[in-house]
Amino acid sequence: MKNIICVIGAGSWGTALSISLSKKGHEVRLWMRDGKQLEQMKISRENVRYLSGVILPENIKLYGDLREAIHGAELVLLTVASQSVRQVIHSIKDAVKKDQVIVNAAKGLENESHLTISQVIKEELPNNPFAVLSGPSHAEEVCRDMPTTLVVGSTKKNVAEFVQDVFITPKLRIYTNPDVIGIELGGALKNVIALGAGICDGLGFGDNAKAALMTRGIREIARLGSVMGADINTFSGLTGIGDLIVTCTSMHSRNRRCGIQIGQGKKAQEAIESIGMVVEGVVTTKVAYELSQQFQVEMPITTEIYKILYEDSDAREAVINLMLRSRTHELEEIVGNQQIEW
Amino acid sequence: MKNIICVIGAGSWGTALSISLSKKGHEVRLWMRDGKQLEQMKISRENVRYLSGVILPENIKLYGDLREAIHGAELVLLTVASQSVRQVIHSIKDAVKKDQVIVNAAKGLENESHLTISQVIKEELPNNPFAVLSGPSHAEEVCRDMPTTLVVGSTKKNVAEFVQDVFITPKLRIYTNPDVIGIELGGALKNVIALGAGICDGLGFGDNAKAALMTRGIREIARLGSVMGADINTFSGLTGIGDLIVTCTSMHSRNRRCGIQIGQGKKAQEAIESIGMVVEGVVTTKVAYELSQQFQVEMPITTEIYKILYEDSDAREAVINLMLRSRTHELEEIVGNQQIEW
Repeated sequence: MKNIICVIGAGSWGTALSISLSKKGHEVRLWMRDGKQLEQMKISRENVRYLSGVILPENIKLYGDLREAIHGAELVLLTVASQSVRQVIHSIKDAVKKDQVIVNAAKGLENESHLTISQVIKEELPNNPFAVLSGPSHAEEVCRDMPTTLVVGSTKKNVAEFVQDVFITPKLRIYTNPDVIGIELGGALKNVIALGAGICDGLGFGDNAKAALMTRGIREIARLGSVMGADINTFSGLTGIGDLIVTCTSMHSRNRRCGIQIGQGKKAQEAIESIGMVVEGVVTTKVAYELSQQFQVEMPITTEIYKILYEDSDAREAVINLMLRSRTHELEEIVGNQQIEW
Repeated sequence: MKNIICVIGAGSWGTALSISLSKKGHEVRLWMRDGKQLEQMKISRENVRYLSGVILPENIKLYGDLREAIHGAELVLLTVASQSVRQVIHSIKDAVKKDQVIVNAAKGLENESHLTISQVIKEELPNNPFAVLSGPSHAEEVCRDMPTTLVVGSTKKNVAEFVQDVFITPKLRIYTNPDVIGIELGGALKNVIALGAGICDGLGFGDNAKAALMTRGIREIARLGSVMGADINTFSGLTGIGDLIVTCTSMHSRNRRCGIQIGQGKKAQEAIESIGMVVEGVVTTKVAYELSQQFQVEMPITTEIYKILYEDSDAREAVINLMLRSRTHELEEIVGNQQIEW
């Protein structure tokens, strides 16, 4: 099976997926906004800024004109930053045909509106088949053919299976799951916990504390998710705890690296700027905090990270607050069973 | 509250918990079998072999005579290797009083019998109050007062809360959970997955593959656990995924370090011997494999690790087998929801 695929966004993830798709034989059109990056990549055939060291196969065509890039593509893959999705989609909505499958791979929530990306796209392109692509997957490993698992979510089984067929390779294993909102919330909110894990690391608090933070982190994500209509079990899968693990433990994660710097004493704004790429977790923390207020869901970790990022709270005190929250004789609170009893 | 506590076993975990308990003001009696180690520790006040660099506080008394050590202790904490628990308990059963609380901190399953440690102790000391202590907790961090969470499991609430009160400190947070078998299976079986995670690392397969392995690992543990009577939700808590995370990602883990060497090409037996301490996961893999057969539960990771350890299977092929298991159009299988549908 060979398809024409338009990849919107030449960051690390868009570039890595383009490489994987093109090696499978698809015709890949990689679009980027930045004219300078386009010229550079046309000459060097390498994404020096976002994914250096990997040469782009010949069947990846580089585009600066988005309308031209999407024309005739069977699958349009979005890999731009979450806050740019609406504007990008909006700019081409009259050019998109109804049968073009839209796949989102950005992991975030829209600021102000609090919408997930599928909800944003639903507003802009209500009639197109849609799927979300998520899971534990650093671009740096996918572009080097290292074994990786991903999950495609769509409310329509035939769409999920089409996307699965497009992406699957012996090294890139694709699973399907109909729980779109669960997949989206897991992918977005893990970046908040990754900031926290980084802070924990930056403070030198060790592996025990970080594992506790991650365990509680997925619990509060699941708590919010189930109130927002997700299947709670999705959070124990690849797009939930799986993605949380890879993001909180790898140096590839920008969110974790940003957290480490905050833990080491840098001001939040300074740390964010030093990363040099979009740190999705920063806006997601704000949206998640506001959602926790809106739905009245207790999210202690998100709240502490929010205070560090937006209210200049002290990182060390925040982590200690989280540790000392427990009263004496507190039962362990567990996802899916808040009412455990003797 | 001050208590007399007898800690049986001066490995890294017994020593670390002794230090934490003694700093809280308890009278701690630390027993060890090895006379040479005892003499050495009496002179240096340091456990050079298992936990070097940390000086034992004065209120830890060192014992070579087990009957003397347990006499009058309100709490007896077992930290010996899982395969030694029965023999140690058996040797003192006539000297143990009925009101002495037995707490097990070993994480394994008994070879041949396939019993959990609580079941072993139930056979030897059926009338004593019992609790299990587990969670994400490397000894190397606990003895240095780094923030750590633990869970006490007991079928009796008053026993769980007594043990919680004994161990809790501002840095060592203790939660309770009545699901003893869930806690025990999580603590034991994560060592099998840690061997696998190490193998994955040793083969250079990257963070994406390891996160997938861990996600699937906790799923197969939960699958076996729920058949054996555990509460499936316990596996998403501190003693389940929490402990799995800390064990699979830290260099403190002997099981992971052993796996790394196997992944790098060492024979299993060679790798095990090179660790120099008990690698609990090796026997646990055999028991878990046999339990999966007995209860007819599919445990693909455990099965591959079993074949590597006991049937000289090739590690690289085993991991690739696990990756390629998925058929096309496979739904993601998730803990607690095997029947997800469109």
